Amino acid sequence: MMKAIAVERDDPDPHVIELPEPTPDEGKALVRTLRVGIDGTDFEVIGGTHGGFPAGDDYHVLGHEAVGVVEDPNGTDLEAGQVVVPTVRRPSAESNEYFERGEPDMAPPELCLERGIDGAHGYMAEYVTSPAEYLVPIPDGFADVGVLVEPMSNAEKAIDLASASRSSFEWEPKAGLVLGNGPLGLLTLALLENRTDVDRTYCLGRRDRPDPTIDVIERLGATYVDSRETPVDEVAAAHEPMDVVVEATGYAKHAFETIDALAPNGVGALLGIPDDWSFEVDGGRLHSEFVLNNKALVGSVNSHLEDFESAKRTLEAAPDWFPEAVMTDVFSPEEVEAAFTRDKSRIKTVIEFDSL
Amino acid sequence: MMKAIAVERDDPDPHVIELPEPTPDEGKALVRTLRVGIDGTDFEVIGGTHGGFPAGDDYHVLGHEAVGVVEDPNGTDLEAGQVVVPTVRRPSAESNEYFERGEPDMAPPELCLERGIDGAHGYMAEYVTSPAEYLVPIPDGFADVGVLVEPMSNAEKAIDLASASRSSFEWEPKAGLVLGNGPLGLLTLALLENRTDVDRTYCLGRRDRPDPTIDVIERLGATYVDSRETPVDEVAAAHEPMDVVVEATGYAKHAFETIDALAPNGVGALLGIPDDWSFEVDGGRLHSEFVLNNKALVGSVNSHLEDFESAKRTLEAAPDWFPEAVMTDVFSPEEVEAAFTRDKSRIKTVIEFDSL
Repeated sequence: MMKAIAVERDDPDPHVIELPEPTPDEGKALVRTLRVGIDGTDFEVIGGTHGGFPAGDDYHVLGHEAVGVVEDPNGTDLEAGQVVVPTVRRPSAESNEYFERGEPDMAPPELCLERGIDGAHGYMAEYVTSPAEYLVPIPDGFADVGVLVEPMSNAEKAIDLASASRSSFEWEPKAGLVLGNGPLGLLTLALLENRTDVDRTYCLGRRDRPDPTIDVIERLGATYVDSRETPVDEVAAAHEPMDVVVEATGYAKHAFETIDALAPNGVGALLGIPDDWSFEVDGGRLHSEFVLNNKALVGSVNSHLEDFESAKRTLEAAPDWFPEAVMTDVFSPEEVEAAFTRDKSRIKTVIEFDSL
Repeated sequence: MMKAIAVERDDPDPHVIELPEPTPDEGKALVRTLRVGIDGTDFEVIGGTHGGFPAGDDYHVLGHEAVGVVEDPNGTDLEAGQVVVPTVRRPSAESNEYFERGEPDMAPPELCLERGIDGAHGYMAEYVTSPAEYLVPIPDGFADVGVLVEPMSNAEKAIDLASASRSSFEWEPKAGLVLGNGPLGLLTLALLENRTDVDRTYCLGRRDRPDPTIDVIERLGATYVDSRETPVDEVAAAHEPMDVVVEATGYAKHAFETIDALAPNGVGALLGIPDDWSFEVDGGRLHSEFVLNNKALVGSVNSHLEDFESAKRTLEAAPDWFPEAVMTDVFSPEEVEAAFTRDKSRIKTVIEFDSL
């Protein structure tokens, strides 16, 4: 038997359960889990507002940001001892064209399961299995910070989509704004700082100093923007118009205010998944602003293998202090209640199942 | 002296005025105007809601969709007798980086004048001058239909921007919807039909049959969608989700309803320039829809030389009947009042100054 962290239909708080150790089917490897990160999506899954239980099961193992080590390659191309990061999406039926061409992130939601999120068990367990093709090898030295590869891969895809949308003309983004100072916001900020030509970066939050996220923002060389003093649609006037804006707040009004924060020819990438919320916008003005200044908005969800590879490079390029400054808290599986307690002194909370 | 069609500060209806024949400065050619088209922007200029008079002048020569023939190359590389289409944008000061790299369409509005629209005289005159670099040579056989090259170039740019935004993944658009059955809408429809892989096309309007635009839509092989029966946000359910939507109505709500008309991974290109108008949207749902289905919106204004070249190819690829079916009415300059009368039996109205 092994320990796993799950929610159950009759016990919706995350807690430790005992499950049989899994046996990998053909084409799958057995992975010993090292660390699994917690993010906002996990709280949505726990709250029942996003994703859902695997069909036929009364429990749902949580966790989609993981790093582990191959315990049994089981005849796949992997080697025992290889450190790996698993991807999140799996085809909902046998397979489909999106998965076959390596673009699961572009599959419509109904063609996907998402491990730890929607219809499939996640990685918060001592052992997990996965088709080898969904396990991304990373260097041993990344065993601790590998838990950041999956969230960073989502930032990579968003920046890729945003850049592609500006590829039919000459575009040299110099000013970038990240909306949101959660872990995804800070990872996106590190990506803009270290892997693009953007040289003036801003990150928006609503926190008082002292605050660990503001410390990270400023150590990265970015400017902290307090949204209580400078709303998104006033950032251009208060600081400068932005060539690129990445929304990582899930706050629906930000999607529309982003249009005003953009410089001519700028692009906003949306990553949040808000609930329904009706409000008034000056749609005529926003529409004209889109057109007269050639602006763009792109929505971006999930990521694919190349984004995981890019995420490894971005984490390598980030300052040495960065991953540890972001992974503020590490808990054992038995400390599950503490791990899932929200606390502004934390940035990324990680559950450690084992070490190399 | 020569005839021109202008508005004056004390006579805001378009009328014929007499002006001295222009003498080209160095680097400019003298062009004898053949035809100039009228579009919705001209009515906005006349109504004073868009653009403005050239600095220091009490009259504004109208017209930005023109075809002419080189009367005097004046030492430029052009040859006398060459049929040409002039572009619209000129730098507002000496020059700027956007014009220098051949991307005037990406210049912010304050760095541009627009001939016949904003701060510069247009082409509704027997003779005009222009720097040779802004005169696009076209075949003699295009002298009559050349007036469609400029508006088609705007559709080309929009489709280019839209396609670029989907270039970071495999995207094979099959279903396309044009919002608007005005001349720009019909030209965009011909572009989708004849120059892309889109093989199921739809065009939305609000007209009763019989109607000349519905005839063109159906002759092109497209499906007419009556927005009074099927609003934009119901098109996906009533017909099919659209891989690409091009908005050419200037109706601000269409910009937002487009998000619902799109298929997963689809893109909407916005071309209209509405006035301010506040209304309620379900911003939370639209934001989530953007993200979960990787959708995009791009605004697009004006066009550059390569788009004019593409527009020539698209008009060549269109069915023989198409240009004449779109250019329903040709008037002489003296018939200016009739030419600027709005009439649903017309599609594109053209003023003919001369012929080859």
